[in-house]
Amino acid sequence: MTDPTKQSELDNVSRRSFLAASTGIAGSFIAGKAAAESLADVPQREVGADLAGLSERSKFVKLARIPEATPGRRNVDHSDAINSKTPLDKLLGTITPSDLHYERSHSGVPDLDPAKHRLLVHGMVEKPLVFSVEDLQEMPSISRRVFIECTGNGWENWKRADPSLTVQNTHGLISTNEWTGVPLRFIVDLAAKNQNATWMLAEGGDAAAVARSIPLTEEILDEAFVAYGQNGEPLRPAHGFPMRLIMPGFEGNLNIKWLRRLKFGDRPWMTRWETARYTQLQADGKAIQFQLRMDTNSVITSPSGTMTIKPGRQKVTGLAWSGHGKIAKVEISTDGAKTWKAAELISPALPKSQSRFEMTWVWDGKPTKIVSRSTDDKGNVQPDRPSFIRVHGTNALFHYNAQQTWAIDETGKVSNVLD
Amino acid sequence: MTDPTKQSELDNVSRRSFLAASTGIAGSFIAGKAAAESLADVPQREVGADLAGLSERSKFVKLARIPEATPGRRNVDHSDAINSKTPLDKLLGTITPSDLHYERSHSGVPDLDPAKHRLLVHGMVEKPLVFSVEDLQEMPSISRRVFIECTGNGWENWKRADPSLTVQNTHGLISTNEWTGVPLRFIVDLAAKNQNATWMLAEGGDAAAVARSIPLTEEILDEAFVAYGQNGEPLRPAHGFPMRLIMPGFEGNLNIKWLRRLKFGDRPWMTRWETARYTQLQADGKAIQFQLRMDTNSVITSPSGTMTIKPGRQKVTGLAWSGHGKIAKVEISTDGAKTWKAAELISPALPKSQSRFEMTWVWDGKPTKIVSRSTDDKGNVQPDRPSFIRVHGTNALFHYNAQQTWAIDETGKVSNVLD
Repeated sequence: MTDPTKQSELDNVSRRSFLAASTGIAGSFIAGKAAAESLADVPQREVGADLAGLSERSKFVKLARIPEATPGRRNVDHSDAINSKTPLDKLLGTITPSDLHYERSHSGVPDLDPAKHRLLVHGMVEKPLVFSVEDLQEMPSISRRVFIECTGNGWENWKRADPSLTVQNTHGLISTNEWTGVPLRFIVDLAAKNQNATWMLAEGGDAAAVARSIPLTEEILDEAFVAYGQNGEPLRPAHGFPMRLIMPGFEGNLNIKWLRRLKFGDRPWMTRWETARYTQLQADGKAIQFQLRMDTNSVITSPSGTMTIKPGRQKVTGLAWSGHGKIAKVEISTDGAKTWKAAELISPALPKSQSRFEMTWVWDGKPTKIVSRSTDDKGNVQPDRPSFIRVHGTNALFHYNAQQTWAIDETGKVSNVLD
Repeated sequence: MTDPTKQSELDNVSRRSFLAASTGIAGSFIAGKAAAESLADVPQREVGADLAGLSERSKFVKLARIPEATPGRRNVDHSDAINSKTPLDKLLGTITPSDLHYERSHSGVPDLDPAKHRLLVHGMVEKPLVFSVEDLQEMPSISRRVFIECTGNGWENWKRADPSLTVQNTHGLISTNEWTGVPLRFIVDLAAKNQNATWMLAEGGDAAAVARSIPLTEEILDEAFVAYGQNGEPLRPAHGFPMRLIMPGFEGNLNIKWLRRLKFGDRPWMTRWETARYTQLQADGKAIQFQLRMDTNSVITSPSGTMTIKPGRQKVTGLAWSGHGKIAKVEISTDGAKTWKAAELISPALPKSQSRFEMTWVWDGKPTKIVSRSTDDKGNVQPDRPSFIRVHGTNALFHYNAQQTWAIDETGKVSNVLD
């Protein structure tokens, strides 16, 4: 894996592949833009605006999520999807800006008063407790960068591929932030959980009161936490202000927002969120319940759906993630999954966090298909679509992690296809 | 060091010290807020607002930098300080939100058109080159989380301590972001730098055209990069949009914003920024030039100046950083530097990045002084103020990294003092 203290090694590898890819390309900037020894090409200097309390985005930068709620209708849950998708095609690096983190909610976004909000901890515990936000902030904390992914991410491609979709449409229900809060194990110990309590109910303070039963495995007790901080500041209302559960590696809907209650017990509660919803009909006719972990996944974010490329050198880049651990390897095929090459990971891989990958490629102008395939450090490999469908069928809605193929036609137009 | 995969160990240590600190404290939430088995204390659920293109901050959260520019005057450089300071006392975790990253500029904030902006690479190179933003984005990239610190951070406490200052006033000229861009070594190799070129001039596109000479050490060639991304999105104008230099561990003013030119040569250019400014008069009457590296530093951000605390359990937390490498250890004294205890680092330490530390402490209600001291992985220890002043005197303005002491009086009021 790449070591941040050994960037020269990474650079050398990248430079070789880049220079190799550049050889013989007409119009590359190396040949085409060699400059005279002058500043003639460089615009004049500008006197700027005064400083301000906040540094806003450039007027030249347009970034927004796609809200999918039906216009004019309140975002209270019906069967239609209500969510805002992260513009993966426009992001750089690995972290998601807080205001672009994807959103999925079942009764809109409450802006709760942190002075009034409380978290109840009860059930099979010796000491039932009620915490304010200030109480949590006084406790020992951790900060950790993790992805959260909606279990429905990718559902658009279950049955067919709409060629008009962008990567924001197909994969925009995943984001990575740094979250800060109190380890679940600390709260469990403070409340003196009964040792027979092997499940926890987490419930949100939104009107839908989304509630999920969570098995208290050692992994979850070690890694889950109740967060009040997001990317250095208090949570945003859309992301659970003033407190939410963080469940690294597991279904987005387990990361309960506006958290108001943790109840401990010895069996799952079978809420409607784990019976009517979030169960999965498989190819063999059986349904999976409590399919909690998000699987090994990746997607090329550029070039991606609706973009147009020109023949010559391309930077192929994207994001990879796994609910099992760290990304160990990402491979890219530029010939429709016939042959594969290893991509570079541009920063150290963190467990249960997104990793950005990239590769320099020369497109010869002929129609082709590009696709990425990730492998995590537990050896899980992202499946191709035929293998995935054989197991999971086409009647499920959640946990789609098949390889994403983008077709490139002879005009350079990139579009969403199944393969 | 803490390992993110072994959070249970971290938790256990923290929990022990927290529980030990809680013993015997009247009014702690464990004794005082034990709840009945009911939701009576937990506010009702709320139906929320519709989703939107961006998720904004809560109306209950107020965050802003302190702009120090004289009101009514343009922010063009005079001798007065012109900068915006990060509210360290209100941040959580280790990363700084992009709109709260500190600002220091010498001729305001230009919002340059990325379609027109160019970077000239010239001087002692075989192939002088001009790059657009798109050119850079096609090259291999790295993403790295690093701090940037203004060399003047801490100058307020050189001669005397104003007791009305907050930690935002005293230490707000440091921030940590994830930056994404092209390794300097890649550009150097592409331009085929002459092997005798041991210096590089980096110049900004603002009206002040801040320009600095940078020695091309192996460390700098390995680690510097030209960034176009900041915390997952394009740079903000205040932070150099569309491109800036990132110099991990070195003076903030070397991280040239609105970068328009890299020139290679065999000696420094002796610009006014390294002769009239950013040189340092020492206690022995000599001045230091090219004192480039930011030293080992830390500050307690809570409790800190102008806050008021109550007797009983406190979470003491703050930030530590070093331009030499990773933070290895932070110690806290709550008795005016007589005795010290190790604080916890709440996430894995990254090189040349801020680390958050914390410790649970019980204040007995008597006047005292609290102070932090960091040690990096190269063995550098943050000096106490008397040792620091013996070497550097009181006539310099830059590179102040003496330990910061906060006094707490009998009413619990916290204030800035020298010690």
